[in-house]
Amino acid sequence: MKKGDTFFLHATPVYIRGSGCCGGKKEGEGPLGHNFDHIGTDNRFECETWEKSEMRMVEIAGEIALKKAGLSGDSIDVAVGGDLLNQCISTSFAMRQIGVPFLGLYGACSTMAEGILVGSMLLAAGFGQNVLATASSHFCSAERQYRYPLEYGGQRPPSAQWTATASGAVVLSLQPSDIRVRSVTVGRVFDPGVTDASNMGPAMAQAAYESLKTHFRDTGTGPKDYDLIATGDLAKIGEGVVRRLFYADGVEMGGQYCDCGCMLYSQEQDVCAGASGCGCSAAVLCSNIIPKMKMGDYRRVLFAGTGALLSPVSTNQGESIPGICHVVSMEVAGQ
Amino acid sequence: MKKGDTFFLHATPVYIRGSGCCGGKKEGEGPLGHNFDHIGTDNRFECETWEKSEMRMVEIAGEIALKKAGLSGDSIDVAVGGDLLNQCISTSFAMRQIGVPFLGLYGACSTMAEGILVGSMLLAAGFGQNVLATASSHFCSAERQYRYPLEYGGQRPPSAQWTATASGAVVLSLQPSDIRVRSVTVGRVFDPGVTDASNMGPAMAQAAYESLKTHFRDTGTGPKDYDLIATGDLAKIGEGVVRRLFYADGVEMGGQYCDCGCMLYSQEQDVCAGASGCGCSAAVLCSNIIPKMKMGDYRRVLFAGTGALLSPVSTNQGESIPGICHVVSMEVAGQ
Repeated sequence: MKKGDTFFLHATPVYIRGSGCCGGKKEGEGPLGHNFDHIGTDNRFECETWEKSEMRMVEIAGEIALKKAGLSGDSIDVAVGGDLLNQCISTSFAMRQIGVPFLGLYGACSTMAEGILVGSMLLAAGFGQNVLATASSHFCSAERQYRYPLEYGGQRPPSAQWTATASGAVVLSLQPSDIRVRSVTVGRVFDPGVTDASNMGPAMAQAAYESLKTHFRDTGTGPKDYDLIATGDLAKIGEGVVRRLFYADGVEMGGQYCDCGCMLYSQEQDVCAGASGCGCSAAVLCSNIIPKMKMGDYRRVLFAGTGALLSPVSTNQGESIPGICHVVSMEVAGQ
Repeated sequence: MKKGDTFFLHATPVYIRGSGCCGGKKEGEGPLGHNFDHIGTDNRFECETWEKSEMRMVEIAGEIALKKAGLSGDSIDVAVGGDLLNQCISTSFAMRQIGVPFLGLYGACSTMAEGILVGSMLLAAGFGQNVLATASSHFCSAERQYRYPLEYGGQRPPSAQWTATASGAVVLSLQPSDIRVRSVTVGRVFDPGVTDASNMGPAMAQAAYESLKTHFRDTGTGPKDYDLIATGDLAKIGEGVVRRLFYADGVEMGGQYCDCGCMLYSQEQDVCAGASGCGCSAAVLCSNIIPKMKMGDYRRVLFAGTGALLSPVSTNQGESIPGICHVVSMEVAGQ
């Protein structure tokens, strides 16, 4: 059933059957590090290039998610996923290894939410029993692709964000499990006119605000109905913008709202405004949100993946940075 | 209903309600040029950069498809689409203009087929009435991104393909229309080990063979059951490889098999092995296949979008070129 931009998974319940996440050294040292399934001793994951390291992270996260779901690759009807690299190579090459039917996505840093959204709808349509959704980013591959060679040692302004070296994977399934996907809201592209590629939180914040507002409208809920509302990677500055936009509508987002970009690293880790990248929200989902839902700490959660739809070329050509946000509503099953 | 890797759209029939395509000067001079809905006088489409020209093409194709479907943007429940540019900017920026809920895809040159496939499943799941699926490529933006600056005037080997300057858009709908999507097969990633980025037909041909074989198996059909089997952009060399792979199985692909990369340009247009790019299969679908189905020249068609999952970085790092192929089975409605 659909209302507004939101699809309700009432008729065909979809569950999160397993999840896995893999991170780099810095992510392991962060406040969520102890909850990662796999932390690399360095950021190389025994590969010779950063791009291959990222491919390997996708494979590792996927393998762990499958293992936790008690499934082999043969049981996966389709995999959906993507990343930030040009032509999404880390996901495509990982899928060569994983070997299941594959639909590539590009939602920038919103990809984990987009994957859960698309995967849930494929299962609702009747396309099989199990879907694997993945997303990844790597600081070193992203930095040289979007900004400067690592060796250049460029200064970072306080508004910059640190691309997470992380990959997350989720197995969606029709088989009942602890956590259920309740509804999904497909985002639209919004552009508040930000042109500074070192300040992407505010560029994506409007999309987050619009998609969350749409979700609240379509579902007849508000912030108080959720134990956690997590946007993807707006970091400190973008999180503040979302709060202010809702406050102007008379809506208090409250203590249950937090951005994944503010959760992955500690204040002492020198990451400027916070974390970003496809891997940020994917890793926070799989290392923190899903485990806490399983423990009963959160019962109802909005996971709002945010993406900045820019490339270095679009920025160099004077374009502003549009944002998008897809919302996934999850709850502990049996409520 | 699903069988193997194929999803059958029996329970919820999905129709192609409208389509539009837009092309550049060279595409207008080709054998299908007179069937394009919009041909630019040059390849700029009144924009100042090639990337913006490509964004404009997506907008134009989308507007035409909506107009032919008799719909406004408000009637579109979701748009799906992608392109070849880094971070898929031509589609993302076009969607900022089109303004509907949007799911970004990355399937390299298979994107038009992937979009029809995903869009059909979203409609089958109950997500609304109408989906817009788009895909695009631009010779000038692709050439400088994947190969050399245009001004360099690099020599092209005979195995090279010419990236189409074209965009195609299709409106999928639950409202009955002339052409129905019958089933879709999700492709897997296959890698025959080709490492020459100037010879991508053979790199993708194995994926095309595997996905078509899977489709024939899942649907209990063979080449003779279709009036046209069109792969996406294998061009002359890759088309020959597909024929030979099937021939080794004792299957004759016959005269009804043709690759879109062999259809877009004439022999005299100096395109080496043929056409490629997301825009190739999208434009051939919208300028040739759909119109011929409407006229009754073709009644049953397999549209097998092919994609090479490489980037210049993966090739420079010594990786081979994996391919993927998604298959869409269409038929004239009422059969």
